[in-house]
Amino acid sequence: MKTLAELFEHTLKDVYYAENAIAKALPKVSAAAKNPELKKAVNHHLEETKGQIETLKKVFKTIDVRPEGVKCDAADGLLKEAAGVMEEGEGVALDAGLLAACQAVEHYEIARYGSLREWAKVLGNEQAHILLSEILDQEKAANSKLTNLAVTAINK
Amino acid sequence: MKTLAELFEHTLKDVYYAENAIAKALPKVSAAAKNPELKKAVNHHLEETKGQIETLKKVFKTIDVRPEGVKCDAADGLLKEAAGVMEEGEGVALDAGLLAACQAVEHYEIARYGSLREWAKVLGNEQAHILLSEILDQEKAANSKLTNLAVTAINK
Repeated sequence: MKTLAELFEHTLKDVYYAENAIAKALPKVSAAAKNPELKKAVNHHLEETKGQIETLKKVFKTIDVRPEGVKCDAADGLLKEAAGVMEEGEGVALDAGLLAACQAVEHYEIARYGSLREWAKVLGNEQAHILLSEILDQEKAANSKLTNLAVTAINK
Repeated sequence: MKTLAELFEHTLKDVYYAENAIAKALPKVSAAAKNPELKKAVNHHLEETKGQIETLKKVFKTIDVRPEGVKCDAADGLLKEAAGVMEEGEGVALDAGLLAACQAVEHYEIARYGSLREWAKVLGNEQAHILLSEILDQEKAANSKLTNLAVTAINK
């Protein structure tokens, strides 16, 4: 990996892997959550995630690369942490822990899409810049929603 | 884990592990970085991280628990990702990739301290709330600095 274009492609495959892993994990999180608002937020984000996977396929198209994931240790670690909460948490600690785990995942995505979007711009790939900005805005909104939920409902 | 107090203690041990792992990893990141501004930012954040570890010890004191870490899969995954960049990256891709990896770590910490700080408040632990807010502000500032560096120096 020497050029920004190579780094962009690698990181795109990395988030593609992450989003697919998240889409697989979210139904389990939704099933484990007790609070109905948290359950609803997780289900909504699952639909959003499926849409983001489709958007990522369009980003792959802008660089003429077949969509595929590469193993992403960070996403694996974050999801393993969420799985740990589901195993060990009960009652208040379960919902608050799941919510916090979801926020950690959102923050990871915000970091990744922030970098990808910036690189797309530097590389002069305007279409990818727009598509990645759309996803970034969704992730930021999802994180704000989870933060509100943490403050108003779950932690009380 | 049933109560918010138990979740708070567990997550505190989790970030304590993470900060210690980060303090161990940052000198390698600084040594690998080519851009002098990135190197400087990483060195500065290493000093900050050492201070945060001391602050976390004070937070442990507020709940009468001996400071100790518990293995944090998310931090391990994030740092493994940074190690991958150091192994595989060269030239522009190395610095831009390291910077992005540092931002992902910062975002993880922002998510974690955001949750911990909120829980401290709900638990009526005012001192922990203040200490964790201090660290959160530092992490947010560190992330802004890295973002500026990405936009102005590294990616160009």
